[in-house]
Amino acid sequence: MNIPRSSFPRVVIVGGGFAGVAMAKELSGKEVQVVLIDKNNYHTFQPLLYQVSTGGLEPDSIAYPIRKILQDYPNFYFRMAELQQVLTESNELVTNLGMLAYDHLVIAVGSETNFFGNDEIEQNGMAMKSIPQSLNLRSMILENFEQALLTDDLHERDALMNFVIVGGGPTGVELAGALAEIKKGILPKDYPDLDTRRAQINLIQSGDRILKEMSEKASKKAEDFLEGLGVQIWKETRVTGYDGKKVTTKTDLKFDAATLIWAAGVKGVSVKGLDFENIVRPGNRLKVNEFNQVEGYTNVYAIGDIACMENDDTPRGHPMMAQPAIQQGRHLGENIVRALDKKPFKPFEYKDKGSMATIGRNKAVVDLKNYRFQGVFAWFVWMFVHLFFLIGFRNRIVVFVNWVYNYVRFDREARLIIRPYQRDYSQFKDSDTA
Amino acid sequence: MNIPRSSFPRVVIVGGGFAGVAMAKELSGKEVQVVLIDKNNYHTFQPLLYQVSTGGLEPDSIAYPIRKILQDYPNFYFRMAELQQVLTESNELVTNLGMLAYDHLVIAVGSETNFFGNDEIEQNGMAMKSIPQSLNLRSMILENFEQALLTDDLHERDALMNFVIVGGGPTGVELAGALAEIKKGILPKDYPDLDTRRAQINLIQSGDRILKEMSEKASKKAEDFLEGLGVQIWKETRVTGYDGKKVTTKTDLKFDAATLIWAAGVKGVSVKGLDFENIVRPGNRLKVNEFNQVEGYTNVYAIGDIACMENDDTPRGHPMMAQPAIQQGRHLGENIVRALDKKPFKPFEYKDKGSMATIGRNKAVVDLKNYRFQGVFAWFVWMFVHLFFLIGFRNRIVVFVNWVYNYVRFDREARLIIRPYQRDYSQFKDSDTA
Repeated sequence: MNIPRSSFPRVVIVGGGFAGVAMAKELSGKEVQVVLIDKNNYHTFQPLLYQVSTGGLEPDSIAYPIRKILQDYPNFYFRMAELQQVLTESNELVTNLGMLAYDHLVIAVGSETNFFGNDEIEQNGMAMKSIPQSLNLRSMILENFEQALLTDDLHERDALMNFVIVGGGPTGVELAGALAEIKKGILPKDYPDLDTRRAQINLIQSGDRILKEMSEKASKKAEDFLEGLGVQIWKETRVTGYDGKKVTTKTDLKFDAATLIWAAGVKGVSVKGLDFENIVRPGNRLKVNEFNQVEGYTNVYAIGDIACMENDDTPRGHPMMAQPAIQQGRHLGENIVRALDKKPFKPFEYKDKGSMATIGRNKAVVDLKNYRFQGVFAWFVWMFVHLFFLIGFRNRIVVFVNWVYNYVRFDREARLIIRPYQRDYSQFKDSDTA
Repeated sequence: MNIPRSSFPRVVIVGGGFAGVAMAKELSGKEVQVVLIDKNNYHTFQPLLYQVSTGGLEPDSIAYPIRKILQDYPNFYFRMAELQQVLTESNELVTNLGMLAYDHLVIAVGSETNFFGNDEIEQNGMAMKSIPQSLNLRSMILENFEQALLTDDLHERDALMNFVIVGGGPTGVELAGALAEIKKGILPKDYPDLDTRRAQINLIQSGDRILKEMSEKASKKAEDFLEGLGVQIWKETRVTGYDGKKVTTKTDLKFDAATLIWAAGVKGVSVKGLDFENIVRPGNRLKVNEFNQVEGYTNVYAIGDIACMENDDTPRGHPMMAQPAIQQGRHLGENIVRALDKKPFKPFEYKDKGSMATIGRNKAVVDLKNYRFQGVFAWFVWMFVHLFFLIGFRNRIVVFVNWVYNYVRFDREARLIIRPYQRDYSQFKDSDTA
């Protein structure tokens, strides 16, 4: 891959997400050569993807060029490359750009949408784990409304304005809230010739409450908020299929809907070449020890969503979210530096800083260790925390400006179909939708 | 197309560019039914496309949802539809969404890149007349540098870092200046392992000066600015071919370049169904009289780039730029209102407000009627005017924030390859590039 070897050991980090970037920063100026590879040339701030999908933010403001992050660090290399296979015997990676040797390998490839093997849903539903996916969803939501204008068939029109969101975690909740606000504040103005009151937002949750990782208080309040915004919540409901127009569930419940957004789970991105039989945990994660070393290897590490560190506090690994990823990235960076100084590794300890979700304007829920609160103050805390963790000064300002504008004007101006989502609407023409 | 008829006459405007939007605004609240169709759901602020291509702005900040523009106007309809043919006998349009009847038809379809029949250049060169095209160009510029890192062949690497811009009008000049600033300020930091001094920016102009529509003083100064930034200007040079790697010209001059950007001309978008033989003017424009009526028709009008109003002051029609489009749109709107009041049409008079172009940081040229100036003040005037004409308060703020940031930090952070431009780089592998 045309990267000169230095006299320092080479650390190859695969993935420029929260974990990979945090680790790279930690290694800045240290006696290692760091090579970061990612299939994109940018870091994505995933927690705000739903705002891109719903026209509240531009994609450019939640993405950040990885080269810019590494710009001021000496001895750093970035390559826009995709990992194809790990050759642990020879300490090399196979990538689409050729071979890459490593001394230490850090797998930080993150997670992808988990359809739990349901190909039909995977093919017809929308996922929201990357910027292109979010833009596709944005285009499709807007195209659905343009299409709804064109039909006189009430059933067809209703299906085009019916949104089914599967998964009551933060992503599903935040998306449902944003869509409800669009329905209330924007659609009636944008589509005066359409009865947009008939638009429906359905949030489907398999368990008995939404935001099940948070406190019961937070779940309850989030449900109240969503219902106040007109979102239909269906609990203890399991979606079994979606052919592009009809959503089926385990019970008799069915929905005619042009849009199904699948936010019901994630799984680790597969990495070829590791001794998988022994190290794969549920959700396709890699079993690591307390130093984030992948089981059976001493110079192969996994951090972030892909890592499953099972201990007493976290028998099923840490939550697949930004905070554990950032903390593991930093910690492993420190451990590598420690090893350079011939000091032993320290075990990773997760500091749970709490969790939060926003439902809409002035509506959020926050669970901290000792405080739990909901409403306006929670909403401000949510915004502050997200601005703080966003990478880049320009991004922060642009996001802040958008939020102030959206708040004051009850608006979301980025409702642009820049690259249409190529969809065949003819399927909705036949009467079966009725 | 499912639009109810009202008792008012229906004005159908085809195209939501400067001309169409200006006219729609003028008709707000008047006794007409207005139907605006556009193939996109957004208005594009074309003068800033080059900043999207060069990572200085996000596309969302120079686009504006057309529905939002029309939101507060009663009796307005928008459809995201493409005009396929005009049936002047029956006063109807054929569109991809079906038929649409009109009483008055306003053709405001604008212009597209004119390759002057050279299919090879059209196929291998990049155009920059729409947001998707600008994003493709952005991706390709960045992908070229990523690719340049991967080769040890100096000739191949040079070709990947060689940019040929054809056309010395405002678009070509502004793009060349922006690329030169990227070369100077960003590439050395982003690609420390690449000798980015070898990157070349070539601006090719067929005539004897760039910015030929402006004063000689402005041309001269713009050339000085560009040369100061390291741009190679080739005058009296006509490009004859480009196979994707080699640019040929009428003389012996040749360039090995992975990127050719064609900004050498525009032509009116073709409209099927009009009596073309008699009304088409050079550049595929429609001949209109002083009321913007298309020759031979009384209820078919053309405004903006597509209209060619030949009179003593403008024997070849007005310049294909924003100002004549906006003025014609407003004027025709006023004339339609006048006709509703049984008053006669007034002839269009173009008020030339001058022209300007920016080359880079603190460097612009402005020609007003009585004043001509260049440099820092011209640059501030250029920015102020562009912010003023940008539609939407949010867009203005976001663009302003980006400009301040880029100015203070000598940076352009939107250098993101969000949708890779699918390119076959293998063609550069063979030795022919050398």
